[in-house]
Amino acid sequence: MPIEFWFDFASNYSYLSAMRIEALARERGVDIVYRPFLLGPVFKAFGWDNSPFVLQKEKGAWVWVDMERQCRKYGLGWRKPSVFPRRSVLPARLATAAEGQPWQAAFIRDIFELNFVHDQDIENEEALSALLRQHGADPQQMLHGAASDEVRQRLRARTEEAQRRGVFGAPSFFIGAEMFWGNDRLDDALDLAAGANQRGAAR
Amino acid sequence: MPIEFWFDFASNYSYLSAMRIEALARERGVDIVYRPFLLGPVFKAFGWDNSPFVLQKEKGAWVWVDMERQCRKYGLGWRKPSVFPRRSVLPARLATAAEGQPWQAAFIRDIFELNFVHDQDIENEEALSALLRQHGADPQQMLHGAASDEVRQRLRARTEEAQRRGVFGAPSFFIGAEMFWGNDRLDDALDLAAGANQRGAAR
Repeated sequence: MPIEFWFDFASNYSYLSAMRIEALARERGVDIVYRPFLLGPVFKAFGWDNSPFVLQKEKGAWVWVDMERQCRKYGLGWRKPSVFPRRSVLPARLATAAEGQPWQAAFIRDIFELNFVHDQDIENEEALSALLRQHGADPQQMLHGAASDEVRQRLRARTEEAQRRGVFGAPSFFIGAEMFWGNDRLDDALDLAAGANQRGAAR
Repeated sequence: MPIEFWFDFASNYSYLSAMRIEALARERGVDIVYRPFLLGPVFKAFGWDNSPFVLQKEKGAWVWVDMERQCRKYGLGWRKPSVFPRRSVLPARLATAAEGQPWQAAFIRDIFELNFVHDQDIENEEALSALLRQHGADPQQMLHGAASDEVRQRLRARTEEAQRRGVFGAPSFFIGAEMFWGNDRLDDALDLAAGANQRGAAR
C-alpha cells in the first residue's frame, strides 16, 4: 500500500519528513504519493490566525531548539527561517501542477531547502523558476499552469479533503484510512504500509 | 549526568515514558530523578482551562488512536481512560512525599497503570493505600505526609520551577539545562545524558 505524505511548505516538521521519506520508503518497498495542501485554512477552522508555534510562545521557543537537534541527528541542513511561517501558496500550486512529473519529489525537496536551509522567500518566482529549470521544466509553462483554475481548484479540494479526513497538522501520513501525525510517526506509518504490502504479496 | 523526568499523572504520554524510562536509562547507565508536577497551573497560565487534547478535538481524536498504537508497539497495557484528564493532585503529593524511598519509581508506575490500564480514579485514597501497602509503606503515614504544608509547598515550588524553566507540557526531560519535550524525545535525552557521562569518565 502506498504512503500518502500530506505537507505544507511552511511547516518545519514537514521539511524533516520530505528529506527523509524517499530513502526510508525505498528500503521498505513502499510507494509515496505527495499531497501538498495548505495548513492556513485548517488552522483558521480551529480559530487560529497563525501557526501554533507562534501562538504558543513556550512551545515555539522549544521547537527551534528541537529542529536544530533533529537536523543534526538526521544529517540535514538547517537555518532557522527569519520569517515563520512563510506564505506557501505558490509553491503548493506548483507542486500540485508537477504531479506525475518524475522530478516532482526532488522539486519538493528543493523548495523545502529554500525555506529551511537557505532562508529564502518560497513564493519568489525567480527562485522557483531557477529550481524548475534545474529539473528541465519550462518555468513559464509551469507558473502558468500553477495559476490556472484547474490547479487552484485541485489544491483547494486537497485541503478540504485533509480537513474531512481529520488532518490537524503537518506532516500527516495516510496508509489507507489510517492517519499518522508528525515526522516522529513516519517510520511507524511506513512499517504499516510495508506490512500491508507483504500481506498482499503472501496471498 | 542524571535525567530529570517531569510528569503529571493525568498525562497519557507521561505514562509511556514512566513505563519505559527505567530500562532505557539502565542500559545507558543514566540515573533518573523523578519530578512530579501539575500541568493544570501551566495550562492555566496559557489561558487554557483543560488539556489541549480536550480543547482541540481533532488532535484529541487522533491521540487515542496513537496511544493504542504506541502501547502495542512498546508492549504496554492500555485502556482509554473514561475520565480525561483525571485529577492528579493527591498522587502527585504522594509521589513527592515518597522522594528518597527505594520504591518511589515502582509506586509511580503503579499509579500510572491505575489511570491508563485499570481506568480508575487516581485520587481514591483506598486504591492509593493498597498500592502503598504493596511497597511496605504505611498508608496513613504517607497520606498524612502528603497533606502536610511541607509537601504541598514542595510540589507547588516544583510546578513553578517547571514554568520558570520553560516546561509547556508533559513529559518533559532535562539533562542539565537542556530540555526535551515528549515521550518521542526520551531516547534522545538519554543519549545526551549518557554522552555527558562518558565525557565525564574520560576526563
